[in-house]
Amino acid sequence: MKEDPAQHAEAFYFEDLCPGFAASSGPCRVTEAEILEFGKRFDPRPFHVDAEAAKQSVFGGLVAPGCLIFAMRSRLVNQLKPPIAYQAGLGLENMQLPNPVRPEDQLFLKVECIERRESKSRPDAGIVRLSNVMTNQTGEVVLTMVANVLVAKMWVAKQSPIDMRSE
Amino acid sequence: MKEDPAQHAEAFYFEDLCPGFAASSGPCRVTEAEILEFGKRFDPRPFHVDAEAAKQSVFGGLVAPGCLIFAMRSRLVNQLKPPIAYQAGLGLENMQLPNPVRPEDQLFLKVECIERRESKSRPDAGIVRLSNVMTNQTGEVVLTMVANVLVAKMWVAKQSPIDMRSE
Repeated sequence: MKEDPAQHAEAFYFEDLCPGFAASSGPCRVTEAEILEFGKRFDPRPFHVDAEAAKQSVFGGLVAPGCLIFAMRSRLVNQLKPPIAYQAGLGLENMQLPNPVRPEDQLFLKVECIERRESKSRPDAGIVRLSNVMTNQTGEVVLTMVANVLVAKMWVAKQSPIDMRSE
Repeated sequence: MKEDPAQHAEAFYFEDLCPGFAASSGPCRVTEAEILEFGKRFDPRPFHVDAEAAKQSVFGGLVAPGCLIFAMRSRLVNQLKPPIAYQAGLGLENMQLPNPVRPEDQLFLKVECIERRESKSRPDAGIVRLSNVMTNQTGEVVLTMVANVLVAKMWVAKQSPIDMRSE
């Protein structure tokens, strides 16, 4: 039986996520301050922590560390409209960072369902493969990856919404 | 000709990174404050941002968001002894997070060279596939992935160490 996503404004559940399903979010701004802070904390290379030294690098200026780009993806996942009823991330396939992220870039995320299947161990959720593409304000792709996620089933969410949120 | 890594205490270059090469770092502590801060900034789910609500979740307590676990890997990569002469990350294959990271965990990283090849476009560097395994203080695996990285060649580093650092 075909589900109508418009029925469930609060979130998209496993039943909604057929191949072809897409959702998007953004923009989300990256600041120079956040690049410098992440660089100093996690990846102190000249092109992440020193605006002057970065000018001499192949990037020609400060660029965001990969771990900040990945964290921005998490932020954008949480802003998807409508939200997806994620229960847990199961892993990632083939993350690529084809273009750098620079201070004041505005990032956008688009996720698309590639495939879905039942969970062998959990009747209350299913496994969805989601293509993730993050772009900047000029449409350049800055991150691509496939995420495998556990997504709640609608009947579970309707019976016990608190359980779902707390998982 | 076989290279002797012990000759080059300052860093490991492409020439050093044959299959079987391994390096490690850690421990690196994860605090509750850092989990809460990352959760609020990037992934505000109950089990990342609310210690009380997290007790009711399947994790039974606060756990680190995936983006913090990935950022801790960056921190540990920068602490590898000896360091690897990374020029750039080219992408990741198959990141898995098989066990949660909790407040006060101590994390360790081990990287091993799986494969290396010449770069088609850059004579000054080569491409190395590195297995990454992050474990906690009890030896549980908390992250696995394969990273494809561009690594400087030794002769380049010796001729122009500043160019290499700034790339």
